[in-house]
Amino acid sequence: MEEYGNVKKAIEALKKGEIVLIYDDDKREAETDMVIASEFITPETIRTFRKNAGGLICTCIMPEDCDKLGIPFMVDILGLASEKYPVLNKLYPDDIPYDEKSSFSITVNHRKTFTGIPDNDRSYTVEKLANMCKENRFEEFGSEFRSPGHVHLLRGTEGLVQRRQGHTEISLALSKIAGTYPMTTICEMMGDNGGALSKELTAKYAEENKLVNVAGADIINYYLNVFCKKEE
Amino acid sequence: MEEYGNVKKAIEALKKGEIVLIYDDDKREAETDMVIASEFITPETIRTFRKNAGGLICTCIMPEDCDKLGIPFMVDILGLASEKYPVLNKLYPDDIPYDEKSSFSITVNHRKTFTGIPDNDRSYTVEKLANMCKENRFEEFGSEFRSPGHVHLLRGTEGLVQRRQGHTEISLALSKIAGTYPMTTICEMMGDNGGALSKELTAKYAEENKLVNVAGADIINYYLNVFCKKEE
Repeated sequence: MEEYGNVKKAIEALKKGEIVLIYDDDKREAETDMVIASEFITPETIRTFRKNAGGLICTCIMPEDCDKLGIPFMVDILGLASEKYPVLNKLYPDDIPYDEKSSFSITVNHRKTFTGIPDNDRSYTVEKLANMCKENRFEEFGSEFRSPGHVHLLRGTEGLVQRRQGHTEISLALSKIAGTYPMTTICEMMGDNGGALSKELTAKYAEENKLVNVAGADIINYYLNVFCKKEE
Repeated sequence: MEEYGNVKKAIEALKKGEIVLIYDDDKREAETDMVIASEFITPETIRTFRKNAGGLICTCIMPEDCDKLGIPFMVDILGLASEKYPVLNKLYPDDIPYDEKSSFSITVNHRKTFTGIPDNDRSYTVEKLANMCKENRFEEFGSEFRSPGHVHLLRGTEGLVQRRQGHTEISLALSKIAGTYPMTTICEMMGDNGGALSKELTAKYAEENKLVNVAGADIINYYLNVFCKKEE
């Protein structure tokens, strides 16, 4: 099982509430995302995400939990609203170069946040959402949160990495393996050359900051060939 | 007119494609946003926004242009979709502490971007959107862009600062005064203490980076008492 050494390090890091760096695939986005188990989020995590990663800060939710919350994909919402606003159908994202569907669902703020955007606010929103779902209080979603807000919710695809190999599904699969509550918060790492952070600079960042840097393919293999086999 | 000295500096800076810092009000968000006229955006702007501001990168659009594009507020979209997904109505943001309505509309990517998130991609999306509207090609919106995406569109309130004094309306008012195409791109400045960047640190940042730092109230006064009077 030495072949899964890096995945095991990622599992341990996620359990400890540390940030893990996950690269999806050369043939997909070719991007590395910072990932944390949402139940461990702090304002410091948000600060690191915005300053050292720089992408959108998004919370990935299991499809079962999305169903309990009552939230579909954003494309489904836009589709329904297109009867009145037809351009929403014309904007349909049917030409995403690396995938067939976008994970985006709605955006939220916790109702006790002020603007919703500072580190304390975004952390509070994510922490409270993780707690609410973990404690099975899904019916409180509408009274505890408002939408639109400043944290993007991403809906994991049914079957996770068996069906889609995005950071949403890979990070949720890792969280399931680690046994943390399966809700992750992620942020794409940007380079200063206008594109995504290169693999070389990502490796350097991981080393300097003592973070686990793992390939999505390794997590997918472990999830399908070790974790799911054990569950059977 | 010396009283409007700072507004005049902001007008000149906006015309030159520079970033302007705008503070809304102690009684509102009490936040400073970085603001640029969208027609001048570059990947460097996005980089500065994400690294030195840290909030959401949003493009503010005039209500008339939103109507031509065919896009309402996100709350209207969620309202329509709530017939099928009732929780979307329960999430209605009727308790925003500093305002009665959120400016959020949809998110977009230009169809020629890859993931949509790196500096080059977000800059391209904003630049092409500004060009399309400036050239009155509103009917091309759906064929040129997809939604959801990684740039948030904000819909300016009808009557701008006469009706709402958010960064959306203040920055659009400044752009109208400056004569740049009235579409701005903005990003909230975050502090490292968990909250918004303090006024003191904002002033320091402005000085160190030679940027104009202006109070929203001064822009509102100039817009209502000088600009709109001239137009009459």
